[in-house]
Amino acid sequence: MRFLVTGGYGFVGSHLVEDLCSSNHDVTVLDNLSNGRLSNLESVRNKITMCMANIEHIRTLHFGDKFDGIFHLATAPRSSSLMDPMRDIETNCKGMMAVLELARAHGAKVVFTSNSGIYGTAPAGASIDESSANNPTTPYDANKLVSEYYCKIYHEIHGVRSLVVRFATVYGERQQVNEKLNWKPLVATLVKNVVNNEDVTINGDGEQTRDLIYVKDAVDGVVKAMASSAGDADICLLSTNKETSVNEVLGMVEEITGQKARIIRSEPLKGDIRRMKYDYGKAKRKFGFEPKYTAKEGIDKMVKYAKKNLHQ
Amino acid sequence: MRFLVTGGYGFVGSHLVEDLCSSNHDVTVLDNLSNGRLSNLESVRNKITMCMANIEHIRTLHFGDKFDGIFHLATAPRSSSLMDPMRDIETNCKGMMAVLELARAHGAKVVFTSNSGIYGTAPAGASIDESSANNPTTPYDANKLVSEYYCKIYHEIHGVRSLVVRFATVYGERQQVNEKLNWKPLVATLVKNVVNNEDVTINGDGEQTRDLIYVKDAVDGVVKAMASSAGDADICLLSTNKETSVNEVLGMVEEITGQKARIIRSEPLKGDIRRMKYDYGKAKRKFGFEPKYTAKEGIDKMVKYAKKNLHQ
Repeated sequence: MRFLVTGGYGFVGSHLVEDLCSSNHDVTVLDNLSNGRLSNLESVRNKITMCMANIEHIRTLHFGDKFDGIFHLATAPRSSSLMDPMRDIETNCKGMMAVLELARAHGAKVVFTSNSGIYGTAPAGASIDESSANNPTTPYDANKLVSEYYCKIYHEIHGVRSLVVRFATVYGERQQVNEKLNWKPLVATLVKNVVNNEDVTINGDGEQTRDLIYVKDAVDGVVKAMASSAGDADICLLSTNKETSVNEVLGMVEEITGQKARIIRSEPLKGDIRRMKYDYGKAKRKFGFEPKYTAKEGIDKMVKYAKKNLHQ
Repeated sequence: MRFLVTGGYGFVGSHLVEDLCSSNHDVTVLDNLSNGRLSNLESVRNKITMCMANIEHIRTLHFGDKFDGIFHLATAPRSSSLMDPMRDIETNCKGMMAVLELARAHGAKVVFTSNSGIYGTAPAGASIDESSANNPTTPYDANKLVSEYYCKIYHEIHGVRSLVVRFATVYGERQQVNEKLNWKPLVATLVKNVVNNEDVTINGDGEQTRDLIYVKDAVDGVVKAMASSAGDADICLLSTNKETSVNEVLGMVEEITGQKARIIRSEPLKGDIRRMKYDYGKAKRKFGFEPKYTAKEGIDKMVKYAKKNLHQ
């Protein structure tokens, strides 16, 4: 089949593109390389078509044959959305709209990777599912939410088929710490700091939790979402239903590396979410999703990768 | 006090600006005249400062003294949002964000006029209130919803004080039928058609209802919202809690004018809302809002105005 992957040179995107190539699909990648890297797709560079552009300018491009499906992963990061909310609207709102217009023209199905941060903080001990109330705490989360509504509206009005997946906190090889974009993913940052013997900054008490999903599980979920017959713009969580605190992640990294972290305590981040634990039951029922990797297994892979790529 | 009114040359905006001027406030009006008209503020043109600009470019302007409050009424219309969703994002999402950034810099309170269309269709006979579920059916409605979230986020993160009012269907003198923007407000269109002896197009069976609020009541609500001590980005409906069908509006216009309409039946509009009836109890409790005009009284004023301004 013929697929477009937006943000395909990024962290999750590159794992997805490799997966699609290994199944012999025809893959076009659209990316502006603001956070993605050409080296992420070195292994498949002769198998894909590349398109360097901002997602919101997709209308000006010509793609030749029609796409069967569009995986829409391109995004401006949550971490910079308070500093540059206009950029967030450009990339996240207009980008989604541009993808839906393209899907409408091509008759393609869309899988949109949204974000579970939309829910805000879970009550103590409670697991969140798709029926939980939305409580976006940053422009990024609000823009992901409105993008989900665009999917629903384009399905109802124009018949564009789509599924929305809300990722928990994805981590894995190739995830970048991007200081320029203030993009500091939890696991990647802690692994990089410890492996490179840098100071480790912990915001707040470190007891804030994340539902950590390993990248290969996340990719498995979006591929299954695209393959499924469902296309009603429904929202499904891709998660593990397990909480891991920042302190626990650091403990695992220290244990796996055998290195002790130098910790600097800092203020809690504005708009940060205290607890994350998401039920993936709907994705399991709807398209057979089930995560395979524990946090320990995934972090072990991250550390091995980081040691091969020191100081990057 | 010193106020900025965005969209102040428009229909509701011009009534608001007149009201503020009559209370001797210092008023600056920002408008790009896409739907507003200079003639709407002829009566107060020597009392106001005018600023011709797109709302999303507000950052590039210099306003001198700080504003105490910003009434944010500027909007791209619901009727064109499916045809030009990118323009809707520019005006409605970026516009709101630009207003909040200005309010943050000025320490000003914002009153944002959102839209009750966000709720979608009410179940038969039920009245909608602020706790009802959101169901946006056009990009316009989705963008109004995300704008409300921006208000909430800017209050939580940056301490910007605001109130959101969701208008029911506002009507009154100076409301324009703008064919170019596909902006055809119900009452204004029917009054214009009948008074000018034009064909009347009824989409669907005409039994779809609106909660019609006369413009002077709507203005009274936003002025009270600004004057109140509340600034927690809470959402309040400004409405009448009464339903009037399209057919009933047409009947009133025919009765008041003594003219018979020539009706053309047409398809229901895509994304149209079947029933609208909204409870204004929260606005009453929070800042003393109560509508004074019946639909009959308001439409009577509209007809008198239209007869004075034939063929406009």
